[in-house]
Amino acid sequence: MLRLSPPGQQRFVQAASFDVHFGGGEANVAACLAGLGGPASFVTRLPAGPIGDAAIAYLRRFGVGTEAILRGGSRLGIYFLETGATQRGSVVIYDRAGSAFSEIDRGMVKWEEALRGSGWLHVTGITPAVSRGAAAAALEAVEEARAAGLKVSCDLNYRAKLWKWGREAREVMPELAERCDILLGNEEDADKVFGIKAPHTDVGKGQISAAGYEKVAEQLLARFPRLQGVALTLRTSLGASHNRWSAVFHDRKDFRVAREHDIIPIIDRVGAGDAFAAGLIYGLNRWPDEPQRTLEFAAASGCLKHSVPGDFNLASLEEVEKLARGEASGRVAR
Amino acid sequence: MLRLSPPGQQRFVQAASFDVHFGGGEANVAACLAGLGGPASFVTRLPAGPIGDAAIAYLRRFGVGTEAILRGGSRLGIYFLETGATQRGSVVIYDRAGSAFSEIDRGMVKWEEALRGSGWLHVTGITPAVSRGAAAAALEAVEEARAAGLKVSCDLNYRAKLWKWGREAREVMPELAERCDILLGNEEDADKVFGIKAPHTDVGKGQISAAGYEKVAEQLLARFPRLQGVALTLRTSLGASHNRWSAVFHDRKDFRVAREHDIIPIIDRVGAGDAFAAGLIYGLNRWPDEPQRTLEFAAASGCLKHSVPGDFNLASLEEVEKLARGEASGRVAR
Amino acid sequence: MLRLSPPGQQRFVQAASFDVHFGGGEANVAACLAGLGGPASFVTRLPAGPIGDAAIAYLRRFGVGTEAILRGGSRLGIYFLETGATQRGSVVIYDRAGSAFSEIDRGMVKWEEALRGSGWLHVTGITPAVSRGAAAAALEAVEEARAAGLKVSCDLNYRAKLWKWGREAREVMPELAERCDILLGNEEDADKVFGIKAPHTDVGKGQISAAGYEKVAEQLLARFPRLQGVALTLRTSLGASHNRWSAVFHDRKDFRVAREHDIIPIIDRVGAGDAFAAGLIYGLNRWPDEPQRTLEFAAASGCLKHSVPGDFNLASLEEVEKLARGEASGRVAR
Amino acid sequence: MLRLSPPGQQRFVQAASFDVHFGGGEANVAACLAGLGGPASFVTRLPAGPIGDAAIAYLRRFGVGTEAILRGGSRLGIYFLETGATQRGSVVIYDRAGSAFSEIDRGMVKWEEALRGSGWLHVTGITPAVSRGAAAAALEAVEEARAAGLKVSCDLNYRAKLWKWGREAREVMPELAERCDILLGNEEDADKVFGIKAPHTDVGKGQISAAGYEKVAEQLLARFPRLQGVALTLRTSLGASHNRWSAVFHDRKDFRVAREHDIIPIIDRVGAGDAFAAGLIYGLNRWPDEPQRTLEFAAASGCLKHSVPGDFNLASLEEVEKLARGEASGRVAR
Amino acid sequence: MLRLSPPGQQRFVQAASFDVHFGGGEANVAACLAGLGGPASFVTRLPAGPIGDAAIAYLRRFGVGTEAILRGGSRLGIYFLETGATQRGSVVIYDRAGSAFSEIDRGMVKWEEALRGSGWLHVTGITPAVSRGAAAAALEAVEEARAAGLKVSCDLNYRAKLWKWGREAREVMPELAERCDILLGNEEDADKVFGIKAPHTDVGKGQISAAGYEKVAEQLLARFPRLQGVALTLRTSLGASHNRWSAVFHDRKDFRVAREHDIIPIIDRVGAGDAFAAGLIYGLNRWPDEPQRTLEFAAASGCLKHSVPGDFNLASLEEVEKLARGEASGRVAR
Amino acid sequence: MLRLSPPGQQRFVQAASFDVHFGGGEANVAACLAGLGGPASFVTRLPAGPIGDAAIAYLRRFGVGTEAILRGGSRLGIYFLETGATQRGSVVIYDRAGSAFSEIDRGMVKWEEALRGSGWLHVTGITPAVSRGAAAAALEAVEEARAAGLKVSCDLNYRAKLWKWGREAREVMPELAERCDILLGNEEDADKVFGIKAPHTDVGKGQISAAGYEKVAEQLLARFPRLQGVALTLRTSLGASHNRWSAVFHDRKDFRVAREHDIIPIIDRVGAGDAFAAGLIYGLNRWPDEPQRTLEFAAASGCLKHSVPGDFNLASLEEVEKLARGEASGRVAR
Repeated sequence: MLRLSPPGQQRFVQAASFDVHFGGGEANVAACLAGLGGPASFVTRLPAGPIGDAAIAYLRRFGVGTEAILRGGSRLGIYFLETGATQRGSVVIYDRAGSAFSEIDRGMVKWEEALRGSGWLHVTGITPAVSRGAAAAALEAVEEARAAGLKVSCDLNYRAKLWKWGREAREVMPELAERCDILLGNEEDADKVFGIKAPHTDVGKGQISAAGYEKVAEQLLARFPRLQGVALTLRTSLGASHNRWSAVFHDRKDFRVAREHDIIPIIDRVGAGDAFAAGLIYGLNRWPDEPQRTLEFAAASGCLKHSVPGDFNLASLEEVEKLARGEASGRVAR
Repeated sequence: MLRLSPPGQQRFVQAASFDVHFGGGEANVAACLAGLGGPASFVTRLPAGPIGDAAIAYLRRFGVGTEAILRGGSRLGIYFLETGATQRGSVVIYDRAGSAFSEIDRGMVKWEEALRGSGWLHVTGITPAVSRGAAAAALEAVEEARAAGLKVSCDLNYRAKLWKWGREAREVMPELAERCDILLGNEEDADKVFGIKAPHTDVGKGQISAAGYEKVAEQLLARFPRLQGVALTLRTSLGASHNRWSAVFHDRKDFRVAREHDIIPIIDRVGAGDAFAAGLIYGLNRWPDEPQRTLEFAAASGCLKHSVPGDFNLASLEEVEKLARGEASGRVAR
Repeated sequence: MLRLSPPGQQRFVQAASFDVHFGGGEANVAACLAGLGGPASFVTRLPAGPIGDAAIAYLRRFGVGTEAILRGGSRLGIYFLETGATQRGSVVIYDRAGSAFSEIDRGMVKWEEALRGSGWLHVTGITPAVSRGAAAAALEAVEEARAAGLKVSCDLNYRAKLWKWGREAREVMPELAERCDILLGNEEDADKVFGIKAPHTDVGKGQISAAGYEKVAEQLLARFPRLQGVALTLRTSLGASHNRWSAVFHDRKDFRVAREHDIIPIIDRVGAGDAFAAGLIYGLNRWPDEPQRTLEFAAASGCLKHSVPGDFNLASLEEVEKLARGEASGRVAR
Repeated sequence: MLRLSPPGQQRFVQAASFDVHFGGGEANVAACLAGLGGPASFVTRLPAGPIGDAAIAYLRRFGVGTEAILRGGSRLGIYFLETGATQRGSVVIYDRAGSAFSEIDRGMVKWEEALRGSGWLHVTGITPAVSRGAAAAALEAVEEARAAGLKVSCDLNYRAKLWKWGREAREVMPELAERCDILLGNEEDADKVFGIKAPHTDVGKGQISAAGYEKVAEQLLARFPRLQGVALTLRTSLGASHNRWSAVFHDRKDFRVAREHDIIPIIDRVGAGDAFAAGLIYGLNRWPDEPQRTLEFAAASGCLKHSVPGDFNLASLEEVEKLARGEASGRVAR
Repeated sequence: MLRLSPPGQQRFVQAASFDVHFGGGEANVAACLAGLGGPASFVTRLPAGPIGDAAIAYLRRFGVGTEAILRGGSRLGIYFLETGATQRGSVVIYDRAGSAFSEIDRGMVKWEEALRGSGWLHVTGITPAVSRGAAAAALEAVEEARAAGLKVSCDLNYRAKLWKWGREAREVMPELAERCDILLGNEEDADKVFGIKAPHTDVGKGQISAAGYEKVAEQLLARFPRLQGVALTLRTSLGASHNRWSAVFHDRKDFRVAREHDIIPIIDRVGAGDAFAAGLIYGLNRWPDEPQRTLEFAAASGCLKHSVPGDFNLASLEEVEKLARGEASGRVAR
Repeated sequence: MLRLSPPGQQRFVQAASFDVHFGGGEANVAACLAGLGGPASFVTRLPAGPIGDAAIAYLRRFGVGTEAILRGGSRLGIYFLETGATQRGSVVIYDRAGSAFSEIDRGMVKWEEALRGSGWLHVTGITPAVSRGAAAAALEAVEEARAAGLKVSCDLNYRAKLWKWGREAREVMPELAERCDILLGNEEDADKVFGIKAPHTDVGKGQISAAGYEKVAEQLLARFPRLQGVALTLRTSLGASHNRWSAVFHDRKDFRVAREHDIIPIIDRVGAGDAFAAGLIYGLNRWPDEPQRTLEFAAASGCLKHSVPGDFNLASLEEVEKLARGEASGRVAR
């Protein structure tokens, strides 16, 4: 997706220019993984022509493999982002109707080729929300990946405004979730998609208790027996410029809570969940026996995303590891 | 429409930001007329929400009346503009599918209210190109305007990429043209829409002879007996930065040719035809008995547009009149 | 007024460009009211020519009616604004001498026409500070408005640097205040204009007690018997980037205190008092029997202004109401 | 003066920011001389405070001595510059009323100190145009300089909009001219100030004949017997982006014409006359016996100014000499 | 190399920011080839760390393969570019001393791997100019390429300021040239490197005759018997904004001259020779039997580069072919 | 040094432009002193040519004397600065190898001339870190200054990455320190240079106790008997956007602690230590008998630097004094 945002804290009605980024759930995860050092590719469908070319160039720039991207369709999905501040929340306006990606369908991607050499497939709940075809393609991807022996993760990523093609998230997402190894979500997703609420929590009022999410994780693990782990990010919103950020991870053995990061002032919070997902995938592969390390790493990755403009977390492996170890003093590296 | 263009002469693939303007055929005419001092309003359909609000604010800023604008639909049409230079032409990419405007239809606009107090209606061939409903609404507008006693003008404005809804320009445009008082077009439109070619002219090679267009005008006037005049802009393209610009006008009495303007370096050529149309409408109303003055004024208006960034010609009445008189020395006004 | 400010946190001496906004007390109130949905017009005097035209275009863009604006005089008043950060305060430099507005005088505005159809007139103490003529025109406006049955509000808005034409604020402001329905001010104005101090308060040291302002309001209500209400904004300055913001309102029945908003980091604090005034006027008209709701709405409007660049509070009705209800989590609206 | 100009070719009504430069006749000459390597100082009066400080910092940056600048008064003069293109001329709007400089008067500058160590004083006709006091101070400067043995030059620099304080240029300028060694002007000044017209020349229509200016120079030399030379710049305006530029010089012995420079596209033409003056002063001092070399050098200096944004000609000695020798190929220096 | 250039036509001393590009002879050729659709990789040595990473990201963005790039050394070479206008030439300042690339040497690149799958190697005379090691590595590259059966081309690209490590271009370049299939250069290189002058030509004065270069090509072909062709670009500099651009090609059978392109105003001329080289390589591979087509294609590629900011020619295959066919009208593609 | 930094919070890999500043330890101190009102000059070595010229222009702009600067050598040292935010620290990359300054040596500066009229010499530990010659020149400067009767101060300013020329800071710095009147450093320098640790302090974890530094100061005073005072800045890093800032001063009589400043959000922390040094030098000269006042002034100067972009503290004397008195409310000055 093309992301268009007024510079600084300008409102849409003021802007004489828009900053140009490209992004979107799975792309963000791929870019973050590429930045951490691993190879990572992105599968999508982009229109032919220079706007689609620009999207591909942007992905390549940040190290994302683009070989499997389909070209076709009439337009690139857009989202407009107005960055909030203090008491004024950010505003996202989706303009995805008729996008090349929304016209994707089962059978269009050559999965065998696309997945060759890969060990992990990650999908998000945004994809099946876009269109019936996208939902079918997401399911196909997961099935093909499992068949090819890849691990599969899915981030619930509930977006109420997107589910308009006939079926609801609660109907579709279970089909994906039951085929996954790892399920991810944020403090609201389990409630919004599966109706599983955390006790002692009122997200709107900023009351979020990490402990309360143990039950949420347990219920998800119970419902989807194939899952090896459930990870949830927890954001306490004290305003558009100030959040507290943590995460939990349940690997059927233990329920673990990451240290909380106090983030002020937020530079750009979009993509933090994706940076968390990338960190989790990285950690599960690199430190399979160190779930706490993996969780802290993933939470640190998501935390650092808040300091980087654009959707992509451009933090280095060294930076994420340093913060994961608790070194948050932000001293100048020189 | 939202217009997004890389700054300066950057290509799409390079851009880290897009300059934001709003524009489109009829809007450009209205803004130019408002800048010349007259009241001018614009009728369209824009989505609810801040992107549509921004479009309205932009129009208001330049003095265009926005009271009759409908709100609704899901998205604002976009066009991407990459500004060329020297031998590299500009590139326009339309992203109008599913726009709020494309969903307009006969019966949606309250024309009686929208036209109240107005003396002139202007439509362009871009509107009927967008969708069946837009074509129906354009025809309705023209019929209502005639019924209400307004003069009506139509700019052929042929855009090959837009006519995709089932009928061709050559089928639809006659319905509009035969109801108009004034027909406008550029050096290619009469050929592309009605198959009327100018002799001794090869637009692609930059061979354009004003004289050759007398026949074109005569044939148009013959075909559409209600027409009181035909005006055509003539652009000799010597490159993306260098054009020669003139215009002709046939009012059934005389065929007149405007002085030619040599324009180098072009700052922004989009909207020049609309600035010409606005100048023509202004002149026909203000100096009804001075067709040469009107033609020179219109040509000067179109010429000055090339010096202003954005779709709108922000030249003042005084500036247009000065150039229409042949004062093109560009000396500093201080 | 033309507002010129170095980008970001640059100091004047560093700036290679100035951001361009237009604003000023009454204009800010009008723009905020227009943004909340109501019609609002602004009366001032601007020079003929393109700089004055640009000011009008700016006002129109944000929905402010400009029909009653006089054109004439030699220059547009300017203020230079350098935005501070943390311990470095913002700097405002007025350059208003000889402005078109300072030459305004009683008899120049056709008030009957300007006020037609309006229900409320708002003036600020900046206007009478500018010149003898401006003071006379302000008084005339208030008298004409009362005669025409409008409600009248006045924001004390004391600016020490402006009162240079011969009379002091303490001499002039009572003439306005005694003709008003609603009087507004900030934590310092009552002291600086009328010598009415709040107990237990040291503004310079950031010690501000809402309770202490009950006495201030009572004294103002006692001194000006026509007043129906007194509203004061209370800003606790913890630095240029961090303020606490609240407000009080006394409607002769009750003294009410709004919830306090903690604002960090401040994007642009100029115009917050005007956004409060607009919110108060909006609330008094819409919810005449809900003073607490009105007060919270007004305080929220002023609070949100701190997040928007420029003088104008470009918050929507929905955003202000949401914050007025206490929803300050700043979550992304998508 | 503070110079505020919309970026690129934007019109005032479009600008979201203004580029910030400082400049003005004598300052431009000083900066150009400093850039050529010589010491050069500027005498003016600037307000106390950060806007005046910024002006001084700007001058210092480009090597201009600022020790003799007076501080005081209430505001800095401003001029707004909108840069034209092709057929649209640039627009200059002066906002100098009440400037610190306009309040200068005879007796305020300590000329003995200000002139110490200098060999040349240059004044322009803009200074006496601003106010009675400025005219008096200019005359005083010239008298003091002559008394101290300095050479004196004066650029007529006629600005119709500025002469508003009671006397006309034709009354005041002779007092300066008769005390000067060198008189400068452009193709219009001698006519506008002294009524001396060049034959076969119509400036508005771009008909300028260098030969015709021999008579102009002769008449000026005849009228002011103390003059040792008269130099005139000749600009043929073919549009805002395209000028031809030359100059003539009469040193009572010979009338010399510089080669003509064809300038397209013009980047910024403001200050070209001042760059010419600086070049002439430089040449007369360095090559007193080579008037043709001096004239070519001065014309090249003025020509190069058109390629530099801002009022100051930031061309190096080497660059000016190269162009003065006729090397105009613009090849990359690497 | 990191390229730093003041925005627009600013001079170094004015700049508050530098535009950031990356480029350099061989990189430019690779990027242009990648843009034309073919795979192309670049071999260099870049420092570890984020500045080197940024260079790689930039290359990747434009489709250049970066797998064979060595990492190491202490710094990235920089060049500062000030873009001239009209009579003021551009200025290039090299800051390459001690660059990671200058420390490259024979034996550091694994050529077998780097060249695998490639059919063509291109080197420029800038590489051997940088250091003894770079010269050795360039020779090694050419030898390895020949051994592996690749075609080899070399662009003479003489840069007087760079040859400082002990040997001169005239000593070193023959070693490269005699191992090449195709030799390229501009209107000066053959003279500066081999002392072969074109008759009737004075580059400094802009007198360049295509015909005169037949002798130059013949002498080069005679001196280096392995050469299959010699191609020379011919630039007539009429100023920094206006050049005429053509090229010649001698393939031992015929001497061919490309049509001349008149380029005004030049946006960015750096990299035009490299775009020509890329076009030539592309054409020789795609149309081996159509030397005139290849030459026109290469000249069009170099011409279009002048319209694109940065070192890289971002023109599409379609755009280059269109101009090669002589379609230079620059009409809007929509 | 040329400082190049991506705009806002962009990372290097994202930047399409770099903000341009100039700075470096001693230059920063000089600029801050110039801003406080005193004359201050800077001695360094810069390359000839426009990049060196731009550095000099930058220094002059902010009032720094540049007469004693040597010109020569091949390049200007550069540092790249990526500004961090919240948990992501800023990154500094030095590119100083082969800089004109690194080639400076004893005997190159004419110290007698350079120091004439001065009362104080300040050096930092960055200078001797750069090269053997720079270390020799620093020692020479100190010796010459002492001989000429100047006071001498030295800021330890330890930079591990710079000490690469053969000797270590712990070997070289004592030679400077033993010749100084005042020694400065930050919370780490005494440890890193002299191995003197503060008890109860863990800089990395943000545990800094002002009291603990009394011992550090005492040991330094004991080791270097000529010292009249030791001043240390103390920064508690709570993240890249949030620091606490204080300082201590021991004048052999008393150990004094400045009030702590809480800084959030930090705009630009580079140069804060230099702004402290300048404040200390200013205070020791102006209020020699008021060490607490001097210390508070110096700490306030360093604190305010955090609010100003670039290396230079552009705070006015009035602003520093106000904050030194504890007035930190950041209210708007109007």
